[in-house]
Amino acid sequence: MGDGGWSYRDAGVDLDAAERAKERLTSLVAGTRDAHTLSGLGMFGGLYAVPDDVAGPVLVSSADGVGTKLKLAFMTGRHDTVGQCLVNHCVNDILVQGARPLFFLDYLATGAMDESVVTQVVTGVATACRENACALLGGETAQMPDFYAADEYDLAGFIVGLVARDRILDGSAIEEGDVLLGLPSSGLHTNGYTLARRIVFDHMGLRVDDEFPELERPVGDVLLDVHRSYLGLLWPLLEEGRLHGLAHVTGGGIPGNLPRVLPEGLGAAVDRGAWTTPPLFRVLGRAGGVERDEMYRVFNMGMGMILVVPPGEVDGVVAALTAAGETVPVLGEVVRGSGVTWTD
Amino acid sequence: MGDGGWSYRDAGVDLDAAERAKERLTSLVAGTRDAHTLSGLGMFGGLYAVPDDVAGPVLVSSADGVGTKLKLAFMTGRHDTVGQCLVNHCVNDILVQGARPLFFLDYLATGAMDESVVTQVVTGVATACRENACALLGGETAQMPDFYAADEYDLAGFIVGLVARDRILDGSAIEEGDVLLGLPSSGLHTNGYTLARRIVFDHMGLRVDDEFPELERPVGDVLLDVHRSYLGLLWPLLEEGRLHGLAHVTGGGIPGNLPRVLPEGLGAAVDRGAWTTPPLFRVLGRAGGVERDEMYRVFNMGMGMILVVPPGEVDGVVAALTAAGETVPVLGEVVRGSGVTWTD
Repeated sequence: MGDGGWSYRDAGVDLDAAERAKERLTSLVAGTRDAHTLSGLGMFGGLYAVPDDVAGPVLVSSADGVGTKLKLAFMTGRHDTVGQCLVNHCVNDILVQGARPLFFLDYLATGAMDESVVTQVVTGVATACRENACALLGGETAQMPDFYAADEYDLAGFIVGLVARDRILDGSAIEEGDVLLGLPSSGLHTNGYTLARRIVFDHMGLRVDDEFPELERPVGDVLLDVHRSYLGLLWPLLEEGRLHGLAHVTGGGIPGNLPRVLPEGLGAAVDRGAWTTPPLFRVLGRAGGVERDEMYRVFNMGMGMILVVPPGEVDGVVAALTAAGETVPVLGEVVRGSGVTWTD
Repeated sequence: MGDGGWSYRDAGVDLDAAERAKERLTSLVAGTRDAHTLSGLGMFGGLYAVPDDVAGPVLVSSADGVGTKLKLAFMTGRHDTVGQCLVNHCVNDILVQGARPLFFLDYLATGAMDESVVTQVVTGVATACRENACALLGGETAQMPDFYAADEYDLAGFIVGLVARDRILDGSAIEEGDVLLGLPSSGLHTNGYTLARRIVFDHMGLRVDDEFPELERPVGDVLLDVHRSYLGLLWPLLEEGRLHGLAHVTGGGIPGNLPRVLPEGLGAAVDRGAWTTPPLFRVLGRAGGVERDEMYRVFNMGMGMILVVPPGEVDGVVAALTAAGETVPVLGEVVRGSGVTWTD
């Protein structure tokens, strides 16, 4: 507080810093623009022309946050990956309905405006937007002192994609006997961090610089591994119409997410022995004494995306994905019933 | 923690409560659906068919948060209005580019999942979505213990609207001599709360149940007044093409927002004596000893939306708005130069 009275800066909100941060962000955002992006930063709303290459255009939209994975960014001081996790998570969430991304907006709320941190965070967002051919159309950076700690922030995002009405993946094509293929995750992705942090830091007593058991990499690196985008890998298969469905394995794990894409009357039989549980999850489960079913409800357990494939397409789909360098286990099949039944 | 080991609930995340909250939200969301809404809640992404009544369809999108106005909800226990503020804020932000809303998604992050609070918050969001003919297409409710206090939350939102390419309000039509008309705000809207709370609670020592000086209403009510949507009022004028521009007076006040819509080489001359400063702002300024220019930089000072109108349309626009019950002062005019010049 100055001698004359209160100003906004006295109250903890620095409009000039916000303005400087906005200028830096402008160039980051510019790198994600495409021919449909009609606006720059600074306008009230971002403008994006609806592409005219899709008949019966349907917008597919999703909102998500990074969740408490952000704590890892705070603990390590590495702020340039969480934005990638967020964008990739959102890209996967609309991909499973058959949509390609058009644009993304972020919401970043901080206690204090640290320009360097804001720039790192948005760099991560912009990097993943570029990688997914998605325009970073806008966003909000909110200063909320008394709300967030000075060195903490929350980060959420919002994506809009496009699919032709007759190409929407809504589960209606899925039939009994369809085969479930799995694509590996790159780590925890963005789910289960509240439990994982308790186990790793409180129960195992590790610090971010310590080596993670069995992995020979620092704990911080392991827990910050970027959530994969499956867009590049799966888009060709979607364009060719070879998939009946896709499930993104996020909060709730396989039993929480796979049934979301199955039609009424159908369930999934999944053999957890069909793939090797990555050491990360084995260490967490063992160290935390977490029951097996609970592990599969909280974590992705190594499978980040599940493909529902008609039997006649399985060989071709596996061959295409294997050629792209992936290991693609057959996890099980679609059966009469509901929910997920473990067959092991 | 149970005796056998950790579970997600032990770690503070209650997936069952999240599931129950989701069920309650489904019916709220259903009330906002329209013919273009192709999906319900529970799918990975919300689906919205692009309306085909607009030639050269351009999407206009904006992200925003409620900011520290949320503290008033926490202090009063009233959680059903902040969602309205958020939606209306977003609606106004795309309206100023000429767009009508299509759909909205919210991001609600809480420390603990209080189903009653979540339901109240989303009720506010859904209410305003209905009022603005905007589908509540989806959202994310994140449980983040260790991040938010158990009884606190953050709330952000994302809107997507539609405008015909040749009807975008981008400032290019604005000319020297255009008249600036003002539409009253309904209070602080969603800006300046960090400063306002310091003045009201720390400096003036008021509590939320106390009467606000000069207003004969409780402090909590005054500070929670819902951010107005100007959509219903202004949409007919936009459809008739009678406006050259619109500026939503948010963070940064008139000097921070009006120049955003003016083309290069033009500024605004504004007479602050053209309207009566509402008592709310006079009390805040006086009690906080805030300098006049700072007040106009932080708060809307009673004007929530500024219309840029060609001189020949002023009488008709004022007549239409007056007939709708509004008081519409002439604030000034567009002049050569840049930024806002106060003429008093």
